Amino acid sequence: MENGKVMINIGVIGYGYWGTNLVRSFAEAPGAVLHVVVDPDPEKLQLAKRRYPGVKTAARLDDILGDPDLDAVAIATPVSTHFDLALAALRAGKHVWLEKPMTETSAQARQLTEEAKKRGLTLLVDHTFIYTGAIRKMRDIVASGDLGDIYYYDSTRVNLGLFQHDVNVISDLAVHDFSILDYIMGKHPAAVSASGVTHFPGMPENLAYISLFYESGAIAHANVNWLAPVKVRQILLGGSKKMIVYDDMATSEKVKVYDCGVKFAKDPQEIYQLRVGYRTGDMWAPKLATSEALRVAADHFVDCIKSSTTPVTDGLLGLRVVEIIEAATASMLRRGETIQLERQGRNV
Amino acid sequence: MENGKVMINIGVIGYGYWGTNLVRSFAEAPGAVLHVVVDPDPEKLQLAKRRYPGVKTAARLDDILGDPDLDAVAIATPVSTHFDLALAALRAGKHVWLEKPMTETSAQARQLTEEAKKRGLTLLVDHTFIYTGAIRKMRDIVASGDLGDIYYYDSTRVNLGLFQHDVNVISDLAVHDFSILDYIMGKHPAAVSASGVTHFPGMPENLAYISLFYESGAIAHANVNWLAPVKVRQILLGGSKKMIVYDDMATSEKVKVYDCGVKFAKDPQEIYQLRVGYRTGDMWAPKLATSEALRVAADHFVDCIKSSTTPVTDGLLGLRVVEIIEAATASMLRRGETIQLERQGRNV
Amino acid sequence: MENGKVMINIGVIGYGYWGTNLVRSFAEAPGAVLHVVVDPDPEKLQLAKRRYPGVKTAARLDDILGDPDLDAVAIATPVSTHFDLALAALRAGKHVWLEKPMTETSAQARQLTEEAKKRGLTLLVDHTFIYTGAIRKMRDIVASGDLGDIYYYDSTRVNLGLFQHDVNVISDLAVHDFSILDYIMGKHPAAVSASGVTHFPGMPENLAYISLFYESGAIAHANVNWLAPVKVRQILLGGSKKMIVYDDMATSEKVKVYDCGVKFAKDPQEIYQLRVGYRTGDMWAPKLATSEALRVAADHFVDCIKSSTTPVTDGLLGLRVVEIIEAATASMLRRGETIQLERQGRNV
Amino acid sequence: MENGKVMINIGVIGYGYWGTNLVRSFAEAPGAVLHVVVDPDPEKLQLAKRRYPGVKTAARLDDILGDPDLDAVAIATPVSTHFDLALAALRAGKHVWLEKPMTETSAQARQLTEEAKKRGLTLLVDHTFIYTGAIRKMRDIVASGDLGDIYYYDSTRVNLGLFQHDVNVISDLAVHDFSILDYIMGKHPAAVSASGVTHFPGMPENLAYISLFYESGAIAHANVNWLAPVKVRQILLGGSKKMIVYDDMATSEKVKVYDCGVKFAKDPQEIYQLRVGYRTGDMWAPKLATSEALRVAADHFVDCIKSSTTPVTDGLLGLRVVEIIEAATASMLRRGETIQLERQGRNV
Repeated sequence: MENGKVMINIGVIGYGYWGTNLVRSFAEAPGAVLHVVVDPDPEKLQLAKRRYPGVKTAARLDDILGDPDLDAVAIATPVSTHFDLALAALRAGKHVWLEKPMTETSAQARQLTEEAKKRGLTLLVDHTFIYTGAIRKMRDIVASGDLGDIYYYDSTRVNLGLFQHDVNVISDLAVHDFSILDYIMGKHPAAVSASGVTHFPGMPENLAYISLFYESGAIAHANVNWLAPVKVRQILLGGSKKMIVYDDMATSEKVKVYDCGVKFAKDPQEIYQLRVGYRTGDMWAPKLATSEALRVAADHFVDCIKSSTTPVTDGLLGLRVVEIIEAATASMLRRGETIQLERQGRNV
Repeated sequence: MENGKVMINIGVIGYGYWGTNLVRSFAEAPGAVLHVVVDPDPEKLQLAKRRYPGVKTAARLDDILGDPDLDAVAIATPVSTHFDLALAALRAGKHVWLEKPMTETSAQARQLTEEAKKRGLTLLVDHTFIYTGAIRKMRDIVASGDLGDIYYYDSTRVNLGLFQHDVNVISDLAVHDFSILDYIMGKHPAAVSASGVTHFPGMPENLAYISLFYESGAIAHANVNWLAPVKVRQILLGGSKKMIVYDDMATSEKVKVYDCGVKFAKDPQEIYQLRVGYRTGDMWAPKLATSEALRVAADHFVDCIKSSTTPVTDGLLGLRVVEIIEAATASMLRRGETIQLERQGRNV
Repeated sequence: MENGKVMINIGVIGYGYWGTNLVRSFAEAPGAVLHVVVDPDPEKLQLAKRRYPGVKTAARLDDILGDPDLDAVAIATPVSTHFDLALAALRAGKHVWLEKPMTETSAQARQLTEEAKKRGLTLLVDHTFIYTGAIRKMRDIVASGDLGDIYYYDSTRVNLGLFQHDVNVISDLAVHDFSILDYIMGKHPAAVSASGVTHFPGMPENLAYISLFYESGAIAHANVNWLAPVKVRQILLGGSKKMIVYDDMATSEKVKVYDCGVKFAKDPQEIYQLRVGYRTGDMWAPKLATSEALRVAADHFVDCIKSSTTPVTDGLLGLRVVEIIEAATASMLRRGETIQLERQGRNV
Repeated sequence: MENGKVMINIGVIGYGYWGTNLVRSFAEAPGAVLHVVVDPDPEKLQLAKRRYPGVKTAARLDDILGDPDLDAVAIATPVSTHFDLALAALRAGKHVWLEKPMTETSAQARQLTEEAKKRGLTLLVDHTFIYTGAIRKMRDIVASGDLGDIYYYDSTRVNLGLFQHDVNVISDLAVHDFSILDYIMGKHPAAVSASGVTHFPGMPENLAYISLFYESGAIAHANVNWLAPVKVRQILLGGSKKMIVYDDMATSEKVKVYDCGVKFAKDPQEIYQLRVGYRTGDMWAPKLATSEALRVAADHFVDCIKSSTTPVTDGLLGLRVVEIIEAATASMLRRGETIQLERQGRNV
């Protein structure tokens, strides 16, 4: 397979809830051709055929890896299967799109990353939030220095959500915050402390609170919960100069930038009473790009394959996110004990 | 001084921000007489005299403790002075109203509690939230069993608030959650894990995340922050049968009860896929009592003195709250390490 | 064509924005078969064929009316074409689904209604809101008498919407309120007064305020505007016993029932001061059916054809709505002069 | 009495709900002295004396008009008494502050305006909204031209409010919009059409909808209702370049400026389909002055007296507002018939 190909032939592995979205996105992406859909369930394959007459189908990934026309696979199966499927695809010379979280362990994530690098293949982990207009705008604002020093990131991600039986709520929901933090902060946290419980014996933790500590003094926190009566998707991002509120449930003005902060008394006389006061000003809600994030990501995957460039959400980002999930889960099992994170996350 | 007196003569110690509210409340309380205002600042005393012609004033508590007409004192001074002032008042035979938090240490709180008990004096700690219509309604709903088993309590209490220079944000804001939890749960947590930082060297922590663990399996969490661009005062209370959202910033329907929860698949065949599903139903926002909480508390204090009954927010509740503050602060300094709480909190 | 047929063959006329929704809905409706799509634009027909392989296509309605397999047509073309197309279809013995508003004039609407009646054919006007869970719940509550006497209906329907160049904002937006009122009130208004303007010479009115007067003393009002910076879709429904707020932009609890109202002083002494006071109580947000309204309507159309029953949104309802649009537009041109409505609307 | 006096001695007439606010405001205004409180009810006078030891009291205005130390009166009595009281005060040489609405008829308002002018006395009508940071900011933005041409003003002012038995809901609530419009638009409307009803025989109209037409083509609308289950205080202000939403119930960002509007197709080919499209951009919420509006107005009154300048809300503004109330009420009684407004409103 050559880079520079006009059209990339893509196979989607897993035609469940998210898989149908992937199929639709690649079917509509200008540079891609939906080549094959893979699922062990014959009914799902039949449904795919009805919707996309002419698409090939197969029951197993192995059945299609020998197809020389297949350029890339997008894997939307349970996380426990990610490593084996992605490794097989890479070894067969296929580019890989992997759903989040990338793998069950950071060792697996590291191995996939190295395999893709060795073979010069594109490996994209689908941290979809990174492709939204809101998060891109927030990253731009942070990068511009308008917020000053970042003090904290505070996320609430709760609702009456579908229980997962194979991963805990950190892997399901806080994973979004870990990828957003990596993208916005451009730094790996130094340590993590987490609390969480399950209310249903034998099931994964359905509620967790995770604190991440950065060397700069910044702190990040995620409140994730599958058992809340209302749906909240809110991030506060506090800086020394300005602060941001991102409310993903808002029907408009999802990102608001507040010109507010702290000011210090200069008069040493005031030291015992009002050393710190407040400054408030205007609020500004920038217009956001409204393209569907998954379509942006699909186009980006195709572009990266064609131009042999590295995706924004590459395997290293996916690996760093898995490292935090691992550490947070370990801390949660020890009721909040701090776990140090490895530096290599940024330098694999 | 006899119980059974028609009017209780009250002295308010400290005529700052909150002290003026106390003075106003006791001046309007039917069973009380505002007897004296105490403050070291002559200007403040002059202001009090202008507003309440005829009220006595004094610079120090010691100046008035010998007054046989004085029945009770309400102490609204910095927390570091609470213990000495309250102890002196109790030893002089005066009933005591103490602002929250009760004292700097649990040892001090325990000593005050014992002193009041020994002397048969009323000791009320001003955890004002306990006297609001919203919290009383929530307690009633929990006590009725309508929520089923309590799974979690999740509070967010953030805004661009006035920095304190003598206490951290846990003492200033999470203190409300600790008292509400004591009142609603009727139980003391078994352990605490907290994270928090200060962004201003030499100042107390301005942001903290506290998790409380209960023996029942319930978990409570408070997110407190002096440096947020928006004001949030929200509590989620999740039960096995119903759930509550309490939004104190809402201008109406502050308390909402959601008839929603989890249901389990009975068919063992489904065990690997949909063991847990969701149930949603109506939402109900009960009418709340609208009396001003501080007035309710002031009347309650007067009633307790007259009838020799124990206040709802007595010294023991105040003590249990201080114990949690102490432990949470200790955990925060150790970046989340779990601290066990003593059982005696409920049995002093 | 016999009633009692197992599957109803449907032709959709017009494959524009709403036509594609109709095609999708009838393609998925269990009792219907998408038989043919009609549009003058060959590109649109090609798109339909790609999406629904096997579906027939035609450029004009006349081309298909002779097809004996065709049972019914759904017309989603500009309103100026509704009358001719629907009349031709009815005369060819086809059941008809017509988009709202039904026709340009009430005379046309009356003729279609009579034609359908004479031939025993089903005629449904697509006032989709009538098939939503929210409006159905509101109708049930009103019908139960829980609200007491209806005092007013107050609707705000504004946003930065697509300008229509063939109909004014009353036909485009207030049409929803007129159909909802017909359904909920079960009465025709006696008179109408409307104000409205266009801000763009040569274009239809882009903003209007319409008041409807009922013999019972109830009043209804609609505020419709294509030029608002925020999207509002809100109805207040006031009764003598309870009141409803329906916010269609809310992501949950769209319908709220308030137990509040007016109470009168019984003591004649109070007559000059407080003859009227307020009563407030609990609020209740009932669970709403979440089925997609268009699917419910499509199924209903098929059922009505099969069982020869009258649709909820039949030609008479469509006619009454057109009468109000006509009268409101006439009043608007005379800057609010009251126009009496004919009684026959309820008795054609 | 000389202008240039250091302190203005003020008498407040009527110590009811609003009168107590006036008393408090003038007691705190730096350039004013609360000289006397007038009320027929001895209990109210006693209450005033308790709160303001040393203040004079009187039962009737006549009792104090001869007092040479009295410079000005603030009249907060039922509207039916405004004219007689204000005329008597002006004739006695006192400056006058009048609550809104100024008088029952425009003839009365005109006479008071002329009387004050003739005598060189200050006459301020308390349209408090004009002194809020929000309305002042909106006026500044309109005056700067940033909004372009004003297309519409759309106000909703509804809640479960206290029924008035002497004035209708237009006088009670829409009066605010009429004064805000006068201030922001700087123009008098040319005509008015209004609808409204009472649901309680013998009581004033409790719900009304008023449309105002301007020569420029702008339209203004007010929706006022004493019988709504929720409190809404919202104004939309649409211009050709930008639009404003002012939500007075918001706890922050009350005024939002949207950079959105309409854009026209330049290509004449598009004339039949997309002649008009939309433009959306950023949103901006300016910081607002937070001074209490009533205090700003009280200080302004005192300044106008001292400097012999004309108040922002002078008698002419008050008169124009009364003219609109009169015309709107007349139109309402004729079910929406348009009433022309006199031009002289801007040129008395």
